[in-house]
Amino acid sequence: MKQLRIGLIGYGFMGRTHSNAFTQVKNFFDLEYQPVLKAICARDEKNAKAFASKWGYESIETDWRKLIARDDIDVIDIAAPNNVHAEICIAAAKAGKMILCEKPLAMNGPEAEKILAAVTKAKVPNMVWYNYRRVPAVTLAKQLIDEGRLGKIFHYRAKFLQDWTINADLPQGGAGLWRLDAKVAGSGVTGDLLAHCIDTALWLNGNIDTVTATTETFVKQRKHTLTGKMEKVTIDDASLFLARFTNGSLATFESTRYARGHKALYTFEINGENGSLSWDLHDLHRLQVFDYKDESKIRGWKSVHITDGDHPYMKNWWVPGLQIGYAETFVHQVADFIQGLSSGKMASPTFKDGLATDYVTDAVLKSAKTKRWEKVKKVK
Amino acid sequence: MKQLRIGLIGYGFMGRTHSNAFTQVKNFFDLEYQPVLKAICARDEKNAKAFASKWGYESIETDWRKLIARDDIDVIDIAAPNNVHAEICIAAAKAGKMILCEKPLAMNGPEAEKILAAVTKAKVPNMVWYNYRRVPAVTLAKQLIDEGRLGKIFHYRAKFLQDWTINADLPQGGAGLWRLDAKVAGSGVTGDLLAHCIDTALWLNGNIDTVTATTETFVKQRKHTLTGKMEKVTIDDASLFLARFTNGSLATFESTRYARGHKALYTFEINGENGSLSWDLHDLHRLQVFDYKDESKIRGWKSVHITDGDHPYMKNWWVPGLQIGYAETFVHQVADFIQGLSSGKMASPTFKDGLATDYVTDAVLKSAKTKRWEKVKKVK
Amino acid sequence: MKQLRIGLIGYGFMGRTHSNAFTQVKNFFDLEYQPVLKAICARDEKNAKAFASKWGYESIETDWRKLIARDDIDVIDIAAPNNVHAEICIAAAKAGKMILCEKPLAMNGPEAEKILAAVTKAKVPNMVWYNYRRVPAVTLAKQLIDEGRLGKIFHYRAKFLQDWTINADLPQGGAGLWRLDAKVAGSGVTGDLLAHCIDTALWLNGNIDTVTATTETFVKQRKHTLTGKMEKVTIDDASLFLARFTNGSLATFESTRYARGHKALYTFEINGENGSLSWDLHDLHRLQVFDYKDESKIRGWKSVHITDGDHPYMKNWWVPGLQIGYAETFVHQVADFIQGLSSGKMASPTFKDGLATDYVTDAVLKSAKTKRWEKVKKVK
Amino acid sequence: MKQLRIGLIGYGFMGRTHSNAFTQVKNFFDLEYQPVLKAICARDEKNAKAFASKWGYESIETDWRKLIARDDIDVIDIAAPNNVHAEICIAAAKAGKMILCEKPLAMNGPEAEKILAAVTKAKVPNMVWYNYRRVPAVTLAKQLIDEGRLGKIFHYRAKFLQDWTINADLPQGGAGLWRLDAKVAGSGVTGDLLAHCIDTALWLNGNIDTVTATTETFVKQRKHTLTGKMEKVTIDDASLFLARFTNGSLATFESTRYARGHKALYTFEINGENGSLSWDLHDLHRLQVFDYKDESKIRGWKSVHITDGDHPYMKNWWVPGLQIGYAETFVHQVADFIQGLSSGKMASPTFKDGLATDYVTDAVLKSAKTKRWEKVKKVK
Repeated sequence: MKQLRIGLIGYGFMGRTHSNAFTQVKNFFDLEYQPVLKAICARDEKNAKAFASKWGYESIETDWRKLIARDDIDVIDIAAPNNVHAEICIAAAKAGKMILCEKPLAMNGPEAEKILAAVTKAKVPNMVWYNYRRVPAVTLAKQLIDEGRLGKIFHYRAKFLQDWTINADLPQGGAGLWRLDAKVAGSGVTGDLLAHCIDTALWLNGNIDTVTATTETFVKQRKHTLTGKMEKVTIDDASLFLARFTNGSLATFESTRYARGHKALYTFEINGENGSLSWDLHDLHRLQVFDYKDESKIRGWKSVHITDGDHPYMKNWWVPGLQIGYAETFVHQVADFIQGLSSGKMASPTFKDGLATDYVTDAVLKSAKTKRWEKVKKVK
Repeated sequence: MKQLRIGLIGYGFMGRTHSNAFTQVKNFFDLEYQPVLKAICARDEKNAKAFASKWGYESIETDWRKLIARDDIDVIDIAAPNNVHAEICIAAAKAGKMILCEKPLAMNGPEAEKILAAVTKAKVPNMVWYNYRRVPAVTLAKQLIDEGRLGKIFHYRAKFLQDWTINADLPQGGAGLWRLDAKVAGSGVTGDLLAHCIDTALWLNGNIDTVTATTETFVKQRKHTLTGKMEKVTIDDASLFLARFTNGSLATFESTRYARGHKALYTFEINGENGSLSWDLHDLHRLQVFDYKDESKIRGWKSVHITDGDHPYMKNWWVPGLQIGYAETFVHQVADFIQGLSSGKMASPTFKDGLATDYVTDAVLKSAKTKRWEKVKKVK
Repeated sequence: MKQLRIGLIGYGFMGRTHSNAFTQVKNFFDLEYQPVLKAICARDEKNAKAFASKWGYESIETDWRKLIARDDIDVIDIAAPNNVHAEICIAAAKAGKMILCEKPLAMNGPEAEKILAAVTKAKVPNMVWYNYRRVPAVTLAKQLIDEGRLGKIFHYRAKFLQDWTINADLPQGGAGLWRLDAKVAGSGVTGDLLAHCIDTALWLNGNIDTVTATTETFVKQRKHTLTGKMEKVTIDDASLFLARFTNGSLATFESTRYARGHKALYTFEINGENGSLSWDLHDLHRLQVFDYKDESKIRGWKSVHITDGDHPYMKNWWVPGLQIGYAETFVHQVADFIQGLSSGKMASPTFKDGLATDYVTDAVLKSAKTKRWEKVKKVK
Repeated sequence: MKQLRIGLIGYGFMGRTHSNAFTQVKNFFDLEYQPVLKAICARDEKNAKAFASKWGYESIETDWRKLIARDDIDVIDIAAPNNVHAEICIAAAKAGKMILCEKPLAMNGPEAEKILAAVTKAKVPNMVWYNYRRVPAVTLAKQLIDEGRLGKIFHYRAKFLQDWTINADLPQGGAGLWRLDAKVAGSGVTGDLLAHCIDTALWLNGNIDTVTATTETFVKQRKHTLTGKMEKVTIDDASLFLARFTNGSLATFESTRYARGHKALYTFEINGENGSLSWDLHDLHRLQVFDYKDESKIRGWKSVHITDGDHPYMKNWWVPGLQIGYAETFVHQVADFIQGLSSGKMASPTFKDGLATDYVTDAVLKSAKTKRWEKVKKVK
């Protein structure tokens, strides 16, 4: 079996999900390449060594430029904060490395354009970690829609609700809390949570033409972990928008970290003339299906337990009725990336897809300021 | 429109559900006969008058013998405790009255046999108020089973869980609490709750051949409201049994008033080779349907909202999506009883059906004592 | 007991819900006044007579002006299409009649202002039939919010989804289909469905300041039942908006008749710093409650079965665990209206509340045209 | 870190779950020992090699006696059919190996007694893979019960429903189908599915005193894969029993492979005077909690999403809201086994616990034959 030598940058939550995926994928999928955990890169040597020991990385680096310069690395995997994606991606592309980049691809559309240009020029395989496409229930939704089962689409609605920043004493900045600092994150929930909703929506329902949005920062000041002082909160705590898709359907989107009672409630629903589908991250192993062709008197929403051998990815896991969880979605993404290398047809979402989502979040943030409907730029 | 003159005995919880049904039925169903609230009978004159005033009964009686003797009464409706059912039924039959009797039909099978003999001899229309047959979702279940959609049946399971007698300070006897006194109620949850489960099961799944049961009285003594003293509790607080049906299927049945968290959770499920159905009184307007003929990858339990015009009884009520409640099941029963008068085909459950259920509860109570499997007597 | 003599105008779906409420209320609530079904008014004499016979109205009228002129009528109850509300209300007010009017109060805000002026001048009791305030679960939500349990509110979201007009062959106009004709209905789903969502939202969460909206008519032409020709559809099939409330919370609202799989799915959710509530018309007897003060490791959304004696209105019905349905919400509204007459404190929603909702729907429809955020007019 | 050198026997479904657990555990838990995949043993050399390659086992064996004889193996892990457990366990114990054995421990109680005697004499650490104790929701249930939160227990009910053997064309015997052959499996659903329900029940609710049971074989003959002929089916397809626990509570238990619509629906519920808990394998990441001490008017079943840091095992995985699946329960079991080695307090369920479950299944199978209540033997 051929090796796919990984160089990981970042060792936080996402560094762990990626590492687990690289580890598990070979045990569950038959693939041409097998990921090898070659190096982990982090600025702090001690942390890098601890992570390497925990996960079995063969070596460490403390400077990502050195990692990129190494000959024994095939893939640069970026699990670092958003504000360093562009620089690393462009350098990695120039060095001819394949790139896996955490979402969102960049701080904004223009920055993402530069990244896309770099990988296009270098012709290196690339992928953004929008992992929810690989939840089997979501993948099945994609298949059902592509088969035309829903007919003309009228409505789409998505939301991503969390509640972990309600406490005004929670500080901003620093490890794990960089998501509250716009200089590092680019934006708040728009780039963090809405971006997931948008990526799925574009995949399932096509392009968005126009949006009207509003955002809010409920807690205006928070202590910053780096300065120790109360500083203005620069991110959006909540972000809502209405959208009109190219296919004529209408949509509502909402994301917030102030919805008490919801830890990570990402839900979407799509309504077509012949049927509807809905899904919920809190029970990610189920897809709700309404099929208008079912006999009238026993027609209803079906709660489909996505654990059967004929469901996407599931024949690789256990037996019917036994669910998988969040971590497996990353395993699927690695499996598809590798199959893309074998087939020559790059697995989605590529950086081009990542740019499309950044264009939507740009339009959302712009509309929240202009208080007008804004057109969404199209990827060429 | 012809009149159907009602003489009601009893003014408790069931007296109210019956009275409401007699009142509403004409507004929602087109029928040959219209119930007229002729008289309410109760031992206490003041209570009888208050009830008559509230519900619009034209007159009162304080002796049920006088009520039966009246010429202007067509139907004797019995909403009095179980220990007086037999005497009233037999007298009413002799007087040629139609009879509607609350469930269970009698204190036990032998008593019920006498009642059945009386109405058979007198050839008077009769019905037992097992109202759950008239929940539209349950009626639909019956239709689906009769159409053969489930194929060979393997399993049936039912339970009726309540929690209102957990408190040991709750007294027994007296108004509203006669259900805790076996001299008045015949038995505890076996006749009160299990009888409902059994009636539905016999209707949906046919005869039960044999049972093995166990019962328990968790609180051994309670103050009696009539004597003011602590007295032995004579009823069963919980009653469980396994059953084998004539069609070869196996079943579990359970009822209790000690299941914390459940007010009136009557549920049943039936599993056949081609499909399954389940239902729950706490959401009585839904039927869960599993149809094995559905396409494999989108097969799942359908939550059917039983509020459409093609669902049983529902075209008589509102518009799709708007649910009815508990009270309407009694309206349906009156409507069906009247349609039975018009068609000459008596609506079920008749007293014969009521006897069949009493035979099962007799076998259950016997098995709990003998600790053996007991055969269930068959109605001839 | 005093009589409250009702004169009903209209005999459609709403005429039936009101009539049932007038009939049932006296059997379940102890009130100073008892509704008497005095007269039903409809243009077609035969239909009027049939309805009177079915429901027990003592007399009929074919001209609403004659109904208003009668001395033996205390209350004019309007269950006629939206385009006649204003004229009837104003005439009834001048005649000193109490008025119960179906929702929405008027075709638009300016028309509603005139209605409000008339009843204010005449000092007659008035109420709009926004019945969902009287679903016990919704009433309980109001109580919990008023008790301050949720703390500062961050989010509100509501939707009302139906699917009955997806078929392009469905005609517009005529009996039952006037809701598809803007000349009669004023607007489409905005006035029909969104108005319900808005009334509840204003009640639970206070005033809305600004909105941005979009509407769509998916089927552009439909045969008109009166002309027999294909004619332009003038109503909105779907209507979505974002809102900012005076209390600082953000909201999404959506209504449509093109959401396949949903018959009457009205849902709302409200998120505060200390808790959240959500409700769903398809299971109207439940309230979902999240209480942040619950112990952390067993904290979760509680599915509260609103059938207990300490839940609003429920002690008047049956026993714990037994649900009521849609019809009972109108019974509650009549009960509260009558209690308002006794107490001198008029029950909500009054015509003033009805105007407030019309102001919001006006702003929504305007924003959908101007494509800008619009301010909502405040009721003085 | 110290090594824990694993020798696995069997490479089927359970061989995979165990291997994944040995692989993942070091990445998510901080432990004194780290499992090392030393050898896989299977009769067929080719299959053994393929499995070793897939999972990274260092070597293979084709005779389990040789595996046991090796000096470089610390733990014998048995994932082979039930009929070889005893021989292997006893030999492994004599060789001083630690033993992890798939459930049920043995073909029956007497055989399990011999196994227990062997490990007791050899003083080797031992554990049975009843993995459902390590579902975080189930572990939390255990904690809540042990804290006394439910008060006196009245009821327990459990069922394990599958539907994969309804098709009469499914053969018996051979790879993957040995569960249909009693000579290999010992019994049918009693040892396969009920054993899981019983293990959990004994853990949560203490000893069972007596049972009354019934079993059925719905399909009487199936083609045998080894002989190619139709042969009598020797296992039980369904097994139901009533039980009385030592603590006075009553229970129903049911297991079947003929419940259409259920893939692996293992559910249990326990009712105490102060609260109730229920759980469902199809949504294993949730626990339903009813707490009677909650305020009356907002009391209801809480759906607790077991994904928070204060839930058992969950701080080792991802962030709140993100669920784990079936595979992780085996990881937890390995983690606990290793912690038991460090602490000297062996993690449950030990072979002693495994024997206790075998005693219950023995009594169930006996009662199904004698048609009497049978006493359950107690482990000394």
